[in-house]
Amino acid sequence: MSLYVMKFGGSSVGDTERMKRVAKRIAEKQDEGHQCVVVVSAMGDTTDELIDQSKLLNENPPAREMDMLMVNGEQISMALLSMAIHNLGRDAISFTGWQAGFRTEAVHGKARITDIHPERVKKALGEGKIVIVAGFQGMTDEGEITTLGRGGSDTTAVALAAAIDADFCEIYTDVDGIYSTDPRIVKNARKLKEISYDEMLELANLGAAVLHPRAVEYAKHSGVPLIVRSSFNYNEGTVVKEEAVMEQGVVVSGIAYDKNVARISILGVADHPGVLARVFGSLAAHQIDVDIIVQSGGQNGEADFSFTVGLSDRERAIEVLNKTRDELPFRDITFEDNLVKVSIVGAGMVSHPGVAAQMFDVISDQGVNIKMVSTSEIKVSCVIEGGKLQEVIRALHTAYNLDTEEQAFVGGPETRR
Amino acid sequence: MSLYVMKFGGSSVGDTERMKRVAKRIAEKQDEGHQCVVVVSAMGDTTDELIDQSKLLNENPPAREMDMLMVNGEQISMALLSMAIHNLGRDAISFTGWQAGFRTEAVHGKARITDIHPERVKKALGEGKIVIVAGFQGMTDEGEITTLGRGGSDTTAVALAAAIDADFCEIYTDVDGIYSTDPRIVKNARKLKEISYDEMLELANLGAAVLHPRAVEYAKHSGVPLIVRSSFNYNEGTVVKEEAVMEQGVVVSGIAYDKNVARISILGVADHPGVLARVFGSLAAHQIDVDIIVQSGGQNGEADFSFTVGLSDRERAIEVLNKTRDELPFRDITFEDNLVKVSIVGAGMVSHPGVAAQMFDVISDQGVNIKMVSTSEIKVSCVIEGGKLQEVIRALHTAYNLDTEEQAFVGGPETRR
Repeated sequence: MSLYVMKFGGSSVGDTERMKRVAKRIAEKQDEGHQCVVVVSAMGDTTDELIDQSKLLNENPPAREMDMLMVNGEQISMALLSMAIHNLGRDAISFTGWQAGFRTEAVHGKARITDIHPERVKKALGEGKIVIVAGFQGMTDEGEITTLGRGGSDTTAVALAAAIDADFCEIYTDVDGIYSTDPRIVKNARKLKEISYDEMLELANLGAAVLHPRAVEYAKHSGVPLIVRSSFNYNEGTVVKEEAVMEQGVVVSGIAYDKNVARISILGVADHPGVLARVFGSLAAHQIDVDIIVQSGGQNGEADFSFTVGLSDRERAIEVLNKTRDELPFRDITFEDNLVKVSIVGAGMVSHPGVAAQMFDVISDQGVNIKMVSTSEIKVSCVIEGGKLQEVIRALHTAYNLDTEEQAFVGGPETRR
Repeated sequence: MSLYVMKFGGSSVGDTERMKRVAKRIAEKQDEGHQCVVVVSAMGDTTDELIDQSKLLNENPPAREMDMLMVNGEQISMALLSMAIHNLGRDAISFTGWQAGFRTEAVHGKARITDIHPERVKKALGEGKIVIVAGFQGMTDEGEITTLGRGGSDTTAVALAAAIDADFCEIYTDVDGIYSTDPRIVKNARKLKEISYDEMLELANLGAAVLHPRAVEYAKHSGVPLIVRSSFNYNEGTVVKEEAVMEQGVVVSGIAYDKNVARISILGVADHPGVLARVFGSLAAHQIDVDIIVQSGGQNGEADFSFTVGLSDRERAIEVLNKTRDELPFRDITFEDNLVKVSIVGAGMVSHPGVAAQMFDVISDQGVNIKMVSTSEIKVSCVIEGGKLQEVIRALHTAYNLDTEEQAFVGGPETRR
């Protein structure tokens, strides 16, 4: 007998028919002799509908009241799913975030979990019940209701799995698992049997939308084995764990891309200490996240440097920088929008020099210019022109021996989101 | 400065436009210098939609999970209303039932309030905030979420008003106040300026759907003055309080009717002690509510008696009685369905003998047979054939000097329910 936390996302419980299927799936897990704690997201479009209603009343609603509104989406799911399980003759009990013991910091809209007191969850499990927990929510020490922000339900599942010492945390979604790259671009993308937390973190951060980075970080921190699999079929998923077994000859595990990239260049900056700190300090003060930073420099006491931000932050970033122009003299600011960041990720890279060089070769062979490069121990990212993204990804996929003969399963009635 | 509890029902917050109107109304009350605590029901059809969804998953869902589902209706209303108030530049804060301190017995679907700890409500009022509380819900000492059942939001409002020592509890609805009878039947029904708790209780119990009897009982018990008024206009409502000032010459305050009446007669029952107890004990054991009981009797050691039950209970009541036939010998059971109960209510009756006799006269003058009679200090009820209900009510209304020259305001876009 193992203890499973099973997390079902919004499209998996998108309507009452799908919810019945999920209930059946949970009952089957119980029939195999396991204990089940289930974390659910809001049904399909519920969250969007609630946001739409709020906008009609207040374009800029207070974050506290927004949390009071949003938590109902998950709470409706959880109660309905519990009823569907009862309908199969099983005993189930649903808990809100605070009932399941989730305590968070006193921040609305994106609170971090500070502590979990899962006594009620454990007691119900001890009574043979299937426990359903609303994802994405918690409570402060003062009894204020909070939400965990993007990826909150994944995080709920992983954190709860750690708190109750679950054997596995299964993330059910509308794709079959983690693929070597986006199966919409490469039809014979390889489904990974295993992947390490670190690799998954890089992939999650790099735009693979299946698992939220916060959840992966939490899993890495607590050592809970994650399984990503489809709620629409019984295929084996991908296991995310500390030390993934590397397949023979696989140096690169996956290829990710991110289209949400703008490059800003500051030209002719006085090249003295503290300049970078001032530039990026002022951007951070305006909540603008900077990704890759490249300094090319040092002629006549002047330097140029470039960095990337999200597309929607580009205009504001330039405004902020122009305000510091006097204080921080520079000659000019330029920007470029039609870009994409392509990354290869793999724990095997560490011991294989030349992986990056091969990537640059493959990209040039496609006649594509590399604008920026950034590396870590387990990844290489290149910012390139966006026009030939698909060709580049396919070429890299082949070059790193990731192609399989099977065609990827790209999801149920909905594609990933 | 007075402290008001204002309760808005489902049709008053039926959509976002109406919710804006309610927000404005609350802001106006604050502008008059008052403190406001607002109790809201679920928006329009939300409750029905949630029930419909649950039925698709489980025809007979567990009561606990039903409570977990239903409370979201009020919680969505409360958060949206708070946002609408913020949009008017006011500070508002919404609380779930448990956050507002409502403790109930451990019963699902129709819990009674055991205790209220309104510390957070009082603190927020002290900070100048408008407080919005979700109606209809509470929590047990074990942290289980409960609902209060029918009329639960009215009860929430009255109980909270008592707990925070409010000066007034205003029940906003889609009619102008309490009328001398149903304005759909009598166009020139009189809107009552004042009515006593006891009269209101009789009217509420007798089918006037504006205020739930539980809420009136609670108000009577705690002495909170209730005001029933429309959320669609600024007309003065009806004040419900301990000692209503009687208008000159008004003996009967109102006329109520109830179409949900079936009469069952048991004929030829052995006339000895304990028979009635056995009959009504077995009905009570099956949760069948009996209203009027009339025994006519005593020939040859046999008696006949008749009683009324709700229409939907009639068939089951006869089944139950037939099962006791051997143990409790009787000759026959008959029933009659096409009936209606008409009642006159008025605190003035006590000191005016002959009010009942006048009622019987007026009914006979309409050529209508009286089947059963029941009286209390402040009401007389007659069960009559249903065919001439409207004529009987109009004749009684005139006979007791209740007609006015004004035409009643029968509500906003929706009729009462």
